[in-house]
Amino acid sequence: MIEAEITYRVPYADTDQMGVVYYANFFVYFERIRNELFRNIDLPYTVLEEHGVMLPVTKATCDYKASALYDDLLTIKASITEMKGCRLTVENEVFNESGQLLVKGGTIHCFVSSDTRRPVKIPDMVVEAVEVFRSSKAKE
Amino acid sequence: MIEAEITYRVPYADTDQMGVVYYANFFVYFERIRNELFRNIDLPYTVLEEHGVMLPVTKATCDYKASALYDDLLTIKASITEMKGCRLTVENEVFNESGQLLVKGGTIHCFVSSDTRRPVKIPDMVVEAVEVFRSSKAKE
Amino acid sequence: MIEAEITYRVPYADTDQMGVVYYANFFVYFERIRNELFRNIDLPYTVLEEHGVMLPVTKATCDYKASALYDDLLTIKASITEMKGCRLTVENEVFNESGQLLVKGGTIHCFVSSDTRRPVKIPDMVVEAVEVFRSSKAKE
Amino acid sequence: MIEAEITYRVPYADTDQMGVVYYANFFVYFERIRNELFRNIDLPYTVLEEHGVMLPVTKATCDYKASALYDDLLTIKASITEMKGCRLTVENEVFNESGQLLVKGGTIHCFVSSDTRRPVKIPDMVVEAVEVFRSSKAKE
Repeated sequence: MIEAEITYRVPYADTDQMGVVYYANFFVYFERIRNELFRNIDLPYTVLEEHGVMLPVTKATCDYKASALYDDLLTIKASITEMKGCRLTVENEVFNESGQLLVKGGTIHCFVSSDTRRPVKIPDMVVEAVEVFRSSKAKE
Repeated sequence: MIEAEITYRVPYADTDQMGVVYYANFFVYFERIRNELFRNIDLPYTVLEEHGVMLPVTKATCDYKASALYDDLLTIKASITEMKGCRLTVENEVFNESGQLLVKGGTIHCFVSSDTRRPVKIPDMVVEAVEVFRSSKAKE
Repeated sequence: MIEAEITYRVPYADTDQMGVVYYANFFVYFERIRNELFRNIDLPYTVLEEHGVMLPVTKATCDYKASALYDDLLTIKASITEMKGCRLTVENEVFNESGQLLVKGGTIHCFVSSDTRRPVKIPDMVVEAVEVFRSSKAKE
Repeated sequence: MIEAEITYRVPYADTDQMGVVYYANFFVYFERIRNELFRNIDLPYTVLEEHGVMLPVTKATCDYKASALYDDLLTIKASITEMKGCRLTVENEVFNESGQLLVKGGTIHCFVSSDTRRPVKIPDMVVEAVEVFRSSKAKE
């Protein structure tokens, strides 16, 4: 299930002299869509922080299939694919306006306490928020 | 008087599809040399922060005269040109390996308290550190 | 006259450890709105490039009045304030959701030939596109 | 065998409001060390481009073990771990000044023709340059 989808217009800033989006910038795109994902399930990341947890990245991967270009209006999609222990996994896909899949990648996160920076179990409110979102979407 | 000078190798990341360093990145270069400048006068920015002050930018300007290219080994120079009230001004210049001046720009900063984020007079330790550095350099 | 206005959600990527948007990133915001401005007057930057001209920045300035924060939904506005010789000036303002003006800044550009990278007079199609846009907006 | 090693001072620009280096920036660090690696084997990337090949990234991964902080003087190391067909793999490690391993990650690249952007076999000059470098290092 896709939990979030945004469009994003590529600025010059994101390109490099190869004339395409610089590879590291896709990880910023992954963050943009993650922010939207958490907003969609009614748990904006700022609310998580207010509850004393943070969600640093422990692993990031990206497969590059085709280039994104300046001024492309990209579509970025994300889905939570695993929640286990402290760990939350998000898978992302980036498409251009022709619907071509450009990159596919994921991030694994571990919930940590803002105070101790030590791993903590995924907060119940996160698990519940995901469930509520999914069951409401399933009914649509 | 030049208070700091560093070299910096331009990565692909800094370029855009025009084949030159993207204009906003020079402001990151200005920060790199500012960090070095504060280290040179024996007041690394981390020490300033430990003393409860921060130094946000209140104004930034840059004149672009020629392009910086991928893999250029740039020389970046900085100088404190004014200290008055809460205000500290730094002027920067960026040169390529041929010694050509590429950009010239400055930042104006205002010391603020980390707690209140309100302006505070330039700490004495900063004024003294600059004086000590300058008089020791003048003797060289 | 405001020729372009976009909203932009601030990602973590744009912040620094002071907890606010890093100062150089506002120049990227200025580019995002410039792209939209050219699209609005029916002359997307890609079209300008196809006509053999580019529009590098010759001067950039920014005044910082208040901080932009993570997850802020910023409003960015731009206006062409001068067209003369090869030169085109754009003024930009960034507001937060409360309508507070955060930064105000501008860029001066010089049209250059893509081939020679030498300055050229502002193409007629640009002058006309701006006029058409303005007179149609004035009638609204 | 480690083919390249650089130090790099972390600017504010690279941090985010969590107070640590933003995760995507490590991929820029990987590029910085790759550039040095190619320079070390006497084949700077600019020379590769002059020979009509480019080396886009087809896959990137990074494992985050500990945080890098503002003003850290990082040590970044890289090694070519595979060359096969069009494909070249680089493994990278980033350490802080205490020698703690912060991140470990790799990029897989595919040589492509600058003209056609289609995959090409790793140029002989690259294979030879790596061999020459390695045998000269082995003798040290």
